[in-house]
Amino acid sequence: MSLITVGTMAFDAIETPFGKTDKIVGGSATYVAYAASNFVKPIQQVSIVGYDFPVEELEELKSRGVQLDGVEIVPDKKSFFWSGRYHADMNSRDTLVTDLNVLADFNPQIPDSYQGAEFLMLGNLVPAVQLSVIRQLKQRPRLIVMDTMNFWMEVALPDLEEVLKHVDILLVNDAEARQLTGQFSLVKAAKSILQMGPKYLIIKKGEHGALLFDKDSVFFAPALPLEDVFDPTGAGDTFAGGFVGHLAKTGDISFENMKRAIIVGSAMASFCVEKFGATRLREITKTDIEARIQQFKDLVNFEIELL
Amino acid sequence: MSLITVGTMAFDAIETPFGKTDKIVGGSATYVAYAASNFVKPIQQVSIVGYDFPVEELEELKSRGVQLDGVEIVPDKKSFFWSGRYHADMNSRDTLVTDLNVLADFNPQIPDSYQGAEFLMLGNLVPAVQLSVIRQLKQRPRLIVMDTMNFWMEVALPDLEEVLKHVDILLVNDAEARQLTGQFSLVKAAKSILQMGPKYLIIKKGEHGALLFDKDSVFFAPALPLEDVFDPTGAGDTFAGGFVGHLAKTGDISFENMKRAIIVGSAMASFCVEKFGATRLREITKTDIEARIQQFKDLVNFEIELL
Repeated sequence: MSLITVGTMAFDAIETPFGKTDKIVGGSATYVAYAASNFVKPIQQVSIVGYDFPVEELEELKSRGVQLDGVEIVPDKKSFFWSGRYHADMNSRDTLVTDLNVLADFNPQIPDSYQGAEFLMLGNLVPAVQLSVIRQLKQRPRLIVMDTMNFWMEVALPDLEEVLKHVDILLVNDAEARQLTGQFSLVKAAKSILQMGPKYLIIKKGEHGALLFDKDSVFFAPALPLEDVFDPTGAGDTFAGGFVGHLAKTGDISFENMKRAIIVGSAMASFCVEKFGATRLREITKTDIEARIQQFKDLVNFEIELL
Repeated sequence: MSLITVGTMAFDAIETPFGKTDKIVGGSATYVAYAASNFVKPIQQVSIVGYDFPVEELEELKSRGVQLDGVEIVPDKKSFFWSGRYHADMNSRDTLVTDLNVLADFNPQIPDSYQGAEFLMLGNLVPAVQLSVIRQLKQRPRLIVMDTMNFWMEVALPDLEEVLKHVDILLVNDAEARQLTGQFSLVKAAKSILQMGPKYLIIKKGEHGALLFDKDSVFFAPALPLEDVFDPTGAGDTFAGGFVGHLAKTGDISFENMKRAIIVGSAMASFCVEKFGATRLREITKTDIEARIQQFKDLVNFEIELL
C-alpha cells in the first residue's frame, strides 16, 4: 500500500566520540525512506533539496522504490545543512551549525500522482507545513503518523495543537512528551496527549526503548543493547520508517500489529546507529533484518506459568 | 527449597514529592523477605537489629515463613537508621541521616539450622561480611546471588573483587556497572564483570527496566509504566527477593528460568513503589501478583512472522 513521507533531505556533518564526518546525506525523509523501503513500495517522497544534493543519492532512492515527484529541487540554493557534536553518553548533543537554505522556503505541493495514498508519515517540520500537507490530500489517508520536536512546542504551539487534531499517531521522545503536557509521569503525559487528538502515542526513550499507548493499553519495545552506539543521528526517523513501513506493508492498523511495527522500527534503528549517517541502512539485507528481529524476540519474549 | 537471605533490618525516614514518613521499618533483608516469602518457605534470615525493632514486625515475618534464628537482637543499641529525600524525578536522592547503630558491629553467625540451604541472597553489605557468610556455609549453596553498591567500590574494592569470585549472580545498577568496569557501554561492562567471577549479571535500570546477561545471551525486562512512583525505597531489594524467590521455588537455575525470575522480581518491585516502604508488600495477595505478571506479559510479549 502506498505511503507518503514528508520531511527533510539534507546534509549533516557529525562528530561523535568515535570520529567525525564531512557533509554526508541525512534528513528525516531520507532515513524514513531508507527504512520503509525494506517493507513497502512505492514510497512517495515529499521534500526539498538544493542544487548540491547528489544525483546518485536520488538514483539510489529511486532504485529502492522511492518516488521523487514530490521532491522539489531548487536550482540556485543549497540543501539544508546541520552540524552537531554528540557528548560521550550519546544521549545529548550540541548543534554547531544550522543552515536552513532551501528549507526556509519549503512549501510542499503534493503531486496528483500521490493522491489516494493510504499512509502518511509527517516527519518533524514546521507544524503549519505538516497541516498544509494533510489539507492537500483529497482523501484522508487511513493512517497519519507525525513526528515533532520541542522547538515547535516553544515557537508554534497553537499550530502544533491544531495538527495534533488531525493525526492518528504522534511520535515524540520522553522529554518532549513531558514538555508538551507538563506531566513528569509518562503514563500521565500519554493520557494527556491522547486527549489532544492522536489515538496512539509512541514515546521514544532512545537506548531505553519505546512505549506505545492507546487509551486502554501500553506496549513496550526495548532498544537492543549494543556494544557501541556509533552515531545516533537519524535513529528516530529510521524507527519511524520501519514502524510505518511495516504497517503499510501489512495494511493492518490494529494495536496488535502496531506492537510488531514498533519492534520492526526498533530493529531498523538498531542498524542505523552502527555506522555514520545512513551508511548501515544502505548495506543491510532482508536476511539481516530478519536476524535482528529474532534478536528482539530473544531479548524480551518469555513464557511464564502463573503461580 | 530453602533460601538464606543476609542484609539489613532497619528504620527509614523517607521524604518524596508525595509526602514524608516518620521512622518506618525498612532494610534490604526486610524487603527481600517480604518479596521472596510469596514464593518459597522457609526463608532463613540473617540480620541484626536493636532493642527498638518492633516485635510485631518480627511476628509478621515469622507468620510468612521467615525464620529469625539468624537475626541478632542487641539489647542496648538502636537499629540501623537511614533517612533520605528523593528528588522530583525519583531517580536521585539525598541521604539526610545514616546512623549505623547495631550495624557497626554486624558479624553474622550462621545458625546450624541454616546449614545446607540451596540458595543464598547476599544483600548489599560490607563485602567482608558477605564473604564471611559464604565461608561459614559448610556446603556451598547451588546459587549465590549478591547485591552491592558504589560505596564499596570506593572503599573496599579488593574485598569486593574477592567476593565476586565466589558468587553466581551479581546485581548492580547501571551506574555501578559502569563504575566497577570503567566501561560506559553496558554490554561491554557486562562482559568485563562476567570475567570477574559471576556467571550471570543483572543490571537494574530503575524505571528503565533490568538486563540479565550471561556470556552468550541477554534478556531485558521492562519496568511497568506507572502513573506515579510513590516511593522507590526498597524497590531494588524487592526485585532481588522476587527474583531469588522464584528461583528457589522452582529449583531451576537455567537462563530460561532466570528470565521468568526477573519478570517476577520486576512485578514485585512494581508493587513496592506504590506506597511508602514495605506497606504495599504487606497487602498484596497471590491474585494481585498473578495479575501483575500478566500485565508484564501484555507489556512486552509480541508475535511476529519473519519477513
